[in-house]
Amino acid sequence: MVRLAPEERRREARAARAAYRAGRRGPTSGVAPGMTQANLVAVPADWAFDVLLYAQRNPRACPVLDVLEAGRVESALAPGSDVRTDLPAYLVFRDGVVVEEVPDATGYWDDLVTLLIGCSFTFETPLLAAGIPVRHQELGRNVPMYRTDRPCAPAGRLRGDLVVSMRPVPADRVADAVAITGRFPAVHGAPVHVGDPAALGIASLDSPDFGDPPVVRDGEVPVFWACGVTPQAALFASRPPFAVTHAPGHMFVTDVLDSEYDVTGVS
Amino acid sequence: MVRLAPEERRREARAARAAYRAGRRGPTSGVAPGMTQANLVAVPADWAFDVLLYAQRNPRACPVLDVLEAGRVESALAPGSDVRTDLPAYLVFRDGVVVEEVPDATGYWDDLVTLLIGCSFTFETPLLAAGIPVRHQELGRNVPMYRTDRPCAPAGRLRGDLVVSMRPVPADRVADAVAITGRFPAVHGAPVHVGDPAALGIASLDSPDFGDPPVVRDGEVPVFWACGVTPQAALFASRPPFAVTHAPGHMFVTDVLDSEYDVTGVS
Repeated sequence: MVRLAPEERRREARAARAAYRAGRRGPTSGVAPGMTQANLVAVPADWAFDVLLYAQRNPRACPVLDVLEAGRVESALAPGSDVRTDLPAYLVFRDGVVVEEVPDATGYWDDLVTLLIGCSFTFETPLLAAGIPVRHQELGRNVPMYRTDRPCAPAGRLRGDLVVSMRPVPADRVADAVAITGRFPAVHGAPVHVGDPAALGIASLDSPDFGDPPVVRDGEVPVFWACGVTPQAALFASRPPFAVTHAPGHMFVTDVLDSEYDVTGVS
Repeated sequence: MVRLAPEERRREARAARAAYRAGRRGPTSGVAPGMTQANLVAVPADWAFDVLLYAQRNPRACPVLDVLEAGRVESALAPGSDVRTDLPAYLVFRDGVVVEEVPDATGYWDDLVTLLIGCSFTFETPLLAAGIPVRHQELGRNVPMYRTDRPCAPAGRLRGDLVVSMRPVPADRVADAVAITGRFPAVHGAPVHVGDPAALGIASLDSPDFGDPPVVRDGEVPVFWACGVTPQAALFASRPPFAVTHAPGHMFVTDVLDSEYDVTGVS
């Protein structure tokens, strides 16, 4: 695996955002390898405290990377960015229901406060660098994501269950995958669960709630990480009048190197 | 130094809160050794997002330990507590000015959202256990605290400069003090500065902005830690219509052992 120099990686990130702004679609796993990716949730100012507190109380699922006050659309994580246009797809929520999926959310950003939350796509590059396969990238699919029966800590009017992403990992590499991802708590860190979907209330791996179905091969174990779609589960459950999020798997690609979130400094 | 068993330490914390509720006054350094202490800042719901975001963006000065939504007065850090009465003294702010210091703030808590922020008094017990003197405790004084010229990251309508606490440390123990306090990021962690008050914009150590003047002995170095009075500096600078805080040095004594915030698990 060739690892580009930082400046080339940043150039790829900027190019990706420009392409999404111009209308390109598709999930972002594997895009601009080595760069940090982020989930997005934007709510009216009246709900911003509840969402920020929900993130604060559930840091494994909702590690906050940046917050844009109402009226701001450029993230400090990516100079020149516009969070209304630079993601490949957005979901529009009204009263806890997705009413629309749009490639450009400019029309919706009147008084929205935006939270950017770390995404596990970020640590896929170090996993690949260690020779651990990332199946959904191999297959050109979106990562499978599942709603669990594990309640998050409520905050204000918000409550909801944890959402997880799943990657099948060869049994003899699970420990390595835990160690590697554990170095990156800002993008969900170590897995929350290894091996038994039923223990999380997941009825069938073949029917993810978001993203594409997985392919788990013989000798592989399903490994589950907390997922930044967790705030969307809280929107479903708590029904704020309005919100905009990224479409699951369709992330904000930032200019921040993944290594900047490695708490061990190993990267 | 005798270290009490956890249940005895919790009993001391509960007894301290009960005494403050009944009217006892005085700073809390050295009270209920081995227990976590917290700063308090409470604002109307309309300002809660700004304060929480200010804390989020300035985690060294404002590490959030607990947040109580409007209408709540019992902290999860101390079952049975009442944050309106269980601190020895409170400051009442109107339009960025302290208008009153009160021993009981019950009358003010209509719709206030309360943040509890880690306090460096917490790591004084491990410092003492390592044989590092804590001068203000020796002298029965409040810790000296200073406004600096270092701006914090603004958030919403809030801006302000960093406030620091200072402890004189024997030069040959400064490295130990750094290592010990660095294990406790939730109560401000390692010092932000060692040795030169002028570099922080502090004109004279003898004239602290809060607390009591220090006594620095020959061979001792002034060591500065980020302080949970930092939100009060933001209230002065940003003038929200109303707020209540603890009086500097007069903290909320919790039922949480200091060891629970030791990220190394050494305690």
